[in-house]
Amino acid sequence: MSQEPKTVRGRRTRERIVASAVTLMADHGVEATSLDQVLVAAGASKSQLYHYFQDKQELVRAVIAWQAETVLRVSAQELAAVDSWPALQAWFDALVQAQRHSQCRLGCPIGSLAAELADISEPARQDLAGAFDAWTRQLGAMFDRLRAGGLLPGDVDVMTLATATLATIQGGILLAKTTRDPERLRAALTATTGYLQALAPGA
Amino acid sequence: MSQEPKTVRGRRTRERIVASAVTLMADHGVEATSLDQVLVAAGASKSQLYHYFQDKQELVRAVIAWQAETVLRVSAQELAAVDSWPALQAWFDALVQAQRHSQCRLGCPIGSLAAELADISEPARQDLAGAFDAWTRQLGAMFDRLRAGGLLPGDVDVMTLATATLATIQGGILLAKTTRDPERLRAALTATTGYLQALAPGA
Repeated sequence: MSQEPKTVRGRRTRERIVASAVTLMADHGVEATSLDQVLVAAGASKSQLYHYFQDKQELVRAVIAWQAETVLRVSAQELAAVDSWPALQAWFDALVQAQRHSQCRLGCPIGSLAAELADISEPARQDLAGAFDAWTRQLGAMFDRLRAGGLLPGDVDVMTLATATLATIQGGILLAKTTRDPERLRAALTATTGYLQALAPGA
Repeated sequence: MSQEPKTVRGRRTRERIVASAVTLMADHGVEATSLDQVLVAAGASKSQLYHYFQDKQELVRAVIAWQAETVLRVSAQELAAVDSWPALQAWFDALVQAQRHSQCRLGCPIGSLAAELADISEPARQDLAGAFDAWTRQLGAMFDRLRAGGLLPGDVDVMTLATATLATIQGGILLAKTTRDPERLRAALTATTGYLQALAPGA
């Protein structure tokens, strides 16, 4: 059985292994990343790795947890500032800018893992579904605030809006990454913005 | 150098190799599919494979061409029938039904290949970008017909609508595949439908 680190040094070793796996798997994909490559990048031994992770699947789940925690933490901060249509538009613009700055090479860490793993690893699929669900709830809470502020009608289904927005972001990032054109994400978000504003009372 | 088949028998062998690779790569991903597995599935020899494909990359490009041709042929047939809002809704409903029938296991063949390959193979990325562009043009032609029929305003940017719709479909299918819930795709498409109908003259 794999173990939780008991010492500060052990925790650092485990973190170094996960951080190396995060980078390699983001750059090359999960399947194309071997445990040996992770060990070299982390400067760790095989016995250290197997002390903390039973097998590659357990390491992949740690990578998913790391990426989900990072994406959700950043997203929570950004969405907390969204309390108006201009603020939502600014967030959408920032997503497009992030794609532009990375030459559309990054994709979404959760989306990329989901595309690769959902059909080949059931534990990974469940972890990634949980990450998408948490992200959808964050977006739903943001739409709920807009509704409470009178910017959306009282009977609007905020979870449908949240799901649609997350789908648009994921699909827009995939098109941007494949064509190396950040404007694909902008075009996708234009429709979402248009729909939300059409819903707005008095639109 | 790899060769084009010169005989009927040669063409059948090449097709059998591509068909086996299509199935294996759709089920397990490109990286997780070895040439040896393709040979076993196709009942072909290594010399036959290298006669038609210089390396794995060339076989992967044949798989992309096969999937793109299939997706675009089906999509062209389906979109040709869309000349009204109810017909567009029926097409969206059919996409959700297809996810339900497959227990959301299939994903989109083009989207899955793009997510895995766009950042690791430039030739594959270009092929997949071409497939997305052709698909966007099909959707644009459909929106152009709706505009010509007076269902959309004359000054609407049909290529933006097409890009947004394709992004929504891709993102909705990714969420559906990850959560095994076809209603994610329906929720995503609900926003697209709402936006289009808000654009409609007299809405």
